[in-house]
Amino acid sequence: MSFDIVIHNGTIVTVNPDFDIIEDGIVCIKNGRLERVESRSAGYLLPEAEEIIDAKGGIIMPGLVNTHTHLPMSIFKGLADDLPLMPWLNEHIFPAESKHIKPETVRLGTFLACAEMMLSGTTTCCDGYFFEDEVAKAVFDSGMRAVLGQGVIDFPAPGVLEPSDNINNAVRFIDKWHDKSPMITPSIFCHSPYTCSEETLKKAKDAASSKKLIFQIHAAETKDERNRILSEKNSSPIKYLDSIGMLDNDTLLVHSIWVDADDIDRIANSGAKVSVCTESEMKLASGIAPVIKFLEAGIKVGLGTDGSASNNDLDLFQEMDSTAKLHKVNILDPTVMDAKTVFKLATIDGAGALGLDHEIGSIETGKQADIIIIDVNRPHLVPMYNPVSHIVYSARGSDVQDVIIAGNVVVRDKKILTFDVEEILERASLIGEAIKSDFS
Amino acid sequence: MSFDIVIHNGTIVTVNPDFDIIEDGIVCIKNGRLERVESRSAGYLLPEAEEIIDAKGGIIMPGLVNTHTHLPMSIFKGLADDLPLMPWLNEHIFPAESKHIKPETVRLGTFLACAEMMLSGTTTCCDGYFFEDEVAKAVFDSGMRAVLGQGVIDFPAPGVLEPSDNINNAVRFIDKWHDKSPMITPSIFCHSPYTCSEETLKKAKDAASSKKLIFQIHAAETKDERNRILSEKNSSPIKYLDSIGMLDNDTLLVHSIWVDADDIDRIANSGAKVSVCTESEMKLASGIAPVIKFLEAGIKVGLGTDGSASNNDLDLFQEMDSTAKLHKVNILDPTVMDAKTVFKLATIDGAGALGLDHEIGSIETGKQADIIIIDVNRPHLVPMYNPVSHIVYSARGSDVQDVIIAGNVVVRDKKILTFDVEEILERASLIGEAIKSDFS
Repeated sequence: MSFDIVIHNGTIVTVNPDFDIIEDGIVCIKNGRLERVESRSAGYLLPEAEEIIDAKGGIIMPGLVNTHTHLPMSIFKGLADDLPLMPWLNEHIFPAESKHIKPETVRLGTFLACAEMMLSGTTTCCDGYFFEDEVAKAVFDSGMRAVLGQGVIDFPAPGVLEPSDNINNAVRFIDKWHDKSPMITPSIFCHSPYTCSEETLKKAKDAASSKKLIFQIHAAETKDERNRILSEKNSSPIKYLDSIGMLDNDTLLVHSIWVDADDIDRIANSGAKVSVCTESEMKLASGIAPVIKFLEAGIKVGLGTDGSASNNDLDLFQEMDSTAKLHKVNILDPTVMDAKTVFKLATIDGAGALGLDHEIGSIETGKQADIIIIDVNRPHLVPMYNPVSHIVYSARGSDVQDVIIAGNVVVRDKKILTFDVEEILERASLIGEAIKSDFS
Repeated sequence: MSFDIVIHNGTIVTVNPDFDIIEDGIVCIKNGRLERVESRSAGYLLPEAEEIIDAKGGIIMPGLVNTHTHLPMSIFKGLADDLPLMPWLNEHIFPAESKHIKPETVRLGTFLACAEMMLSGTTTCCDGYFFEDEVAKAVFDSGMRAVLGQGVIDFPAPGVLEPSDNINNAVRFIDKWHDKSPMITPSIFCHSPYTCSEETLKKAKDAASSKKLIFQIHAAETKDERNRILSEKNSSPIKYLDSIGMLDNDTLLVHSIWVDADDIDRIANSGAKVSVCTESEMKLASGIAPVIKFLEAGIKVGLGTDGSASNNDLDLFQEMDSTAKLHKVNILDPTVMDAKTVFKLATIDGAGALGLDHEIGSIETGKQADIIIIDVNRPHLVPMYNPVSHIVYSARGSDVQDVIIAGNVVVRDKKILTFDVEEILERASLIGEAIKSDFS
């Protein structure tokens, strides 16, 4: 049998149920899927393939899964920092969005974000924003895999000036992208329990449920939100969402920081998933999500970067590192959130949070070929005692050498093959100049 | 006048007292020092120079200052993680040190650490370890600037098997390196108030003070240490050190996490400095140092990575990012530890913590030419609204393009010019294999 791609000469971190690590491993890819995952035995002859990739002693691992992004906001990264949430939103982000978020800037920002994500080893992302059809077209062209949700909010928003049209708009997006490509799964993204009415939430959830799609929502992000919902609904945000039927297997709760024991039980019992955006939550000072309790309760948790404006990067390697370290220092116990646990959050658990763990998140025969190769021949990665420790605590996104998504090589030797990054950078610089001039 | 090096076509973040940012800036270097720092005016002609460096629109900034390292421990990075402190030390680090720390491995580990630091924009470090003479020779050969302290501890240690010889050993190191080179400043590094007797501490401090050198000590690192010193000395660690005359302008307290208001007053009043190692302190779950209170009290604070075995990297860009974010989330206020404050900790304040701020830490006429250039033409750094935000929140060590130390180009286009990195990596891999086999 001849394969499309054979990868050899690397250590495979499979992230299979036994978390097997295969030294001197071989991965064979055909028609976008993993056909063989094995160790090189004595006298092993490499099978024939269209392309042989030498991992040069590096790490072969599943592509990373970013469970929460606002991709087009890449054009706003570093526009404003170190501010309280409301001035940051009202004086900087919302005015910039209102003036500059158009189909062409959404497309540009999405390509910019995809370039950053692919070059730092992310192969799947979950997004929620406006003009999501433009996001979807750009993500599709980039070669990435994604769950993409049209934003729903009960205020005038980019591309949805009339809030009463927000659900129809989202449904049109779903109808257009449902079953269009195995790479793009449509979704609905409701902004929050305090910016969407109960009626809006129910309609949105119904629209998602009717096609078994992911319903995303920011929930229990800030103390203010919790206090507000407690005051208005006499319930915590999570209890309120549960009481109106929002929580089930296909619900992805983003942040979920201000939760109590009852909230955690409700999430666990409903089967809802949680996306934790550690670095964004640190930078915005939202708080520390009880990730250890979530995992103890059996809740599926994925990592997200959040949008570039509040992080300010899309690098999941840094997110793994920060997540491990923050929870250790938060409860003064260095044994919690060990490297393996955090590595799973960024791969198989993140895939599970998006309902895609039957297809991605690990290197196992039959799964999609979403694989990245880490160059370890660098001073900060030599010597290597444990590839999982290296990935979480020592590696950076810039150590990603090659990226394969659905069996296609999309990054080779740290260069993107699927679109013209230089052109995107030139155009992003120009839009940056225009945005900057508004604030100077 | 002809210069040795002229750098142009970049944004200079000077870190001078006014924190001036010079767009389209020019830096002229002669005999290792900064002769001119200015903006390109209309009709400006570049001066003559041996070498013209085009920053290509990037950021020109002072080299970063790492105020706490154990450089040779680079060969142990990732050897053991996610363990309580005592098993980590007693079952992994101490046995590995006891067997493998020899002059040649110290030299190798130091070169490995210098490669990682230089490639990620650190131009000055402060180290404390054993066989420090080997550390000094390797740092000198690498072209880095450093404050280097021979380790003092009242137990048998690598190279000092007889503890009663520890002070003499440290004094010999000081005598050898004092006034030998402007690049290397000797120092004494006492391990801690619980591993050095009062007599040892006093002798060490006297030896440092007699030559106006930095006295380094881990202090108030863990809750256990505080409780132990409280029980043994009826004082907090800081109060104890103060009471025996250890605190003055030339003392660098490392960590200083478990301190109370009286301790902070004592540090401030004595003029002692603090090195905060955010990521190491997070990973080892030691606690969160009250950096904001230190700064309010007027204490000079620098950032350190700590040794590679407890971080696990030497990248000060990540350290800046984590330090800003950790303190924001810790007190739930996004306005604290803003990008400018953190950037100063990693440059001019770190230089001050080492008593070197008259020479390094900013780009000002007359100072040493310790400069790094950041390549911003990358997806994660476009567009650029604010270079300081980009440095702290978006850039990684791998974005450093060129590094100049004392007017010498030591890194050009991300390649080290001063020693053979490939040979170091090969030898580090081999020692890694040997260490690994001990634990398998």
